[in-house]
Amino acid sequence: MKAEGGAGAAHEKVASGAGEKEDASGTASTNGSLGSAKDGLSAIMPGWFFEISPMWPGEAHSLKVEKVLFQGKSDYQDVMVFQSSTYGKVLVLDGVIQCTERDECAYQEMITHLPLCSIPNPKKVLVVGGGDGGVLREVSRYSSVEQIDICEIDKMVIDVSKEFFPKMAIGYEDPRVNLYVGDGVEFLRNASEGTYDAIIVDSSDPIGPAQELFEKPFFRSIAKALRPGGVVCNILFSFLSYAEMAKSMYSQFSGVIGFVICSTEGPAVDFRHPVYHINEDDHSHKSVGPLKFYNSEIHSAAFCLPSFAKRMFN
Amino acid sequence: MKAEGGAGAAHEKVASGAGEKEDASGTASTNGSLGSAKDGLSAIMPGWFFEISPMWPGEAHSLKVEKVLFQGKSDYQDVMVFQSSTYGKVLVLDGVIQCTERDECAYQEMITHLPLCSIPNPKKVLVVGGGDGGVLREVSRYSSVEQIDICEIDKMVIDVSKEFFPKMAIGYEDPRVNLYVGDGVEFLRNASEGTYDAIIVDSSDPIGPAQELFEKPFFRSIAKALRPGGVVCNILFSFLSYAEMAKSMYSQFSGVIGFVICSTEGPAVDFRHPVYHINEDDHSHKSVGPLKFYNSEIHSAAFCLPSFAKRMFN
Repeated sequence: MKAEGGAGAAHEKVASGAGEKEDASGTASTNGSLGSAKDGLSAIMPGWFFEISPMWPGEAHSLKVEKVLFQGKSDYQDVMVFQSSTYGKVLVLDGVIQCTERDECAYQEMITHLPLCSIPNPKKVLVVGGGDGGVLREVSRYSSVEQIDICEIDKMVIDVSKEFFPKMAIGYEDPRVNLYVGDGVEFLRNASEGTYDAIIVDSSDPIGPAQELFEKPFFRSIAKALRPGGVVCNILFSFLSYAEMAKSMYSQFSGVIGFVICSTEGPAVDFRHPVYHINEDDHSHKSVGPLKFYNSEIHSAAFCLPSFAKRMFN
Repeated sequence: MKAEGGAGAAHEKVASGAGEKEDASGTASTNGSLGSAKDGLSAIMPGWFFEISPMWPGEAHSLKVEKVLFQGKSDYQDVMVFQSSTYGKVLVLDGVIQCTERDECAYQEMITHLPLCSIPNPKKVLVVGGGDGGVLREVSRYSSVEQIDICEIDKMVIDVSKEFFPKMAIGYEDPRVNLYVGDGVEFLRNASEGTYDAIIVDSSDPIGPAQELFEKPFFRSIAKALRPGGVVCNILFSFLSYAEMAKSMYSQFSGVIGFVICSTEGPAVDFRHPVYHINEDDHSHKSVGPLKFYNSEIHSAAFCLPSFAKRMFN
């Protein structure tokens, strides 16, 4: 597979790095006051949520909480939803913010349209993870698409999204969607060869239930399940070989997320120049609304990397 | 003047908006626990610096403090320097982070090279503010430049930078630099007509001592001091007419900064396509080092705006 890295601007849903867990707990313990627990709710600053991650030791992002709307423990992770004072509702898995109503659009649009606008007439698309439904919502904009499979391991994430995040969960309402609740690794292992035009891996951190989605056998399954010239898009972090690079990138400039996009051998894919120009102002998808972040210019611009990142790739 | 907006990725030094001061104090007071004071040092989470700003009500960015290196009160503002655990040294003015050693490069490089690479052979450059010296360091990369004037109002910022931020203050060592400690508004009022090829306004928030740098007479002075076809670069926020837009942009996607770049009437300037391709890997400026963020591709990419921002401009 040929890989290209693209950097898009998106705030949340930054993947977290492996092998540094001690830093996070270290931060919490030497400080002795950054609240308890995976949920990040602070005992000492009541009413605030703290996001502490091994990805950004020595700093904490915090949001003011209006009200905790849901707290549960699924078979896989801690799930929390709170109403923030300025970011709308916020979905938190194992203490890490997955998305906020205010800025989820940037992430969902980029991880979906970077691959789908790079190939002509995608017909079969697979989403691995993405239980909130936001990627489904974006895939549903393509009239060429006939089949949208999604494999999400955690039913609680789906249920919570349907209850609290209707603007993301609306993606499930598309009749082309087939939902499989189960293990993405197994799903892909059993997928027929050459099935999909595009696969989008929208997972949480490599530390939690998504761990296997960051290992080689999974990438081999992806390559097998894609048609020749098919594409896969993933957050930069999910490629272990890029982990150090991603870490350095995030740590230099928080607030930036990287994606890795690859194609299987076959018809060449020129990722920098989208073949499909999606109409960013299209109001025909009334329920979904026009695009907030992505457009064809942003697509190409996402492949322009800062000098330090270019040097890392070379 | 013709204005174009460009968005670059840079973390700190995000300008703050006017007219919302009540929000910041509101946040602090209703919460009752976000520490005291303009310096942001928290009484309740010792060892952490909290950045609270009217620009981002309901959220707080915080950095772990290893050691406070300097605290002073100049004629204009509170000045603090601390050693953070992961961002290097951090310069704070009136409680707002101005720059960190780790990521200052993105801001300094973009605000400098966006204008200077857009015109052929700049000779006379004026920096208003920029007391840390980082913009001077970037301007010094141009061999065509004969004269670099800088007018910074606060001598304490200069002294502190020279003591604690040698990699930024190195900009002062260029023999082409003429330092004026004084009021930028007055300096520009007295500048001869048509003097400068480029003016870079590197100021702090519109709330503090820099307030006048955000008002119309100042922009008129800039236009007068520029040669025909000369350029000015400024953070997006500093144009009051764009304030709402900038606010919306920042509030949608924190971690992103916008610049406004304009030229006076005269030889046309095509900002999107730099006429000078600065060599990002140039090691000949040994003391300054190669560019970390800017390159010609990033220059053009900075003018590709997300869909929501494009709609705001139209």
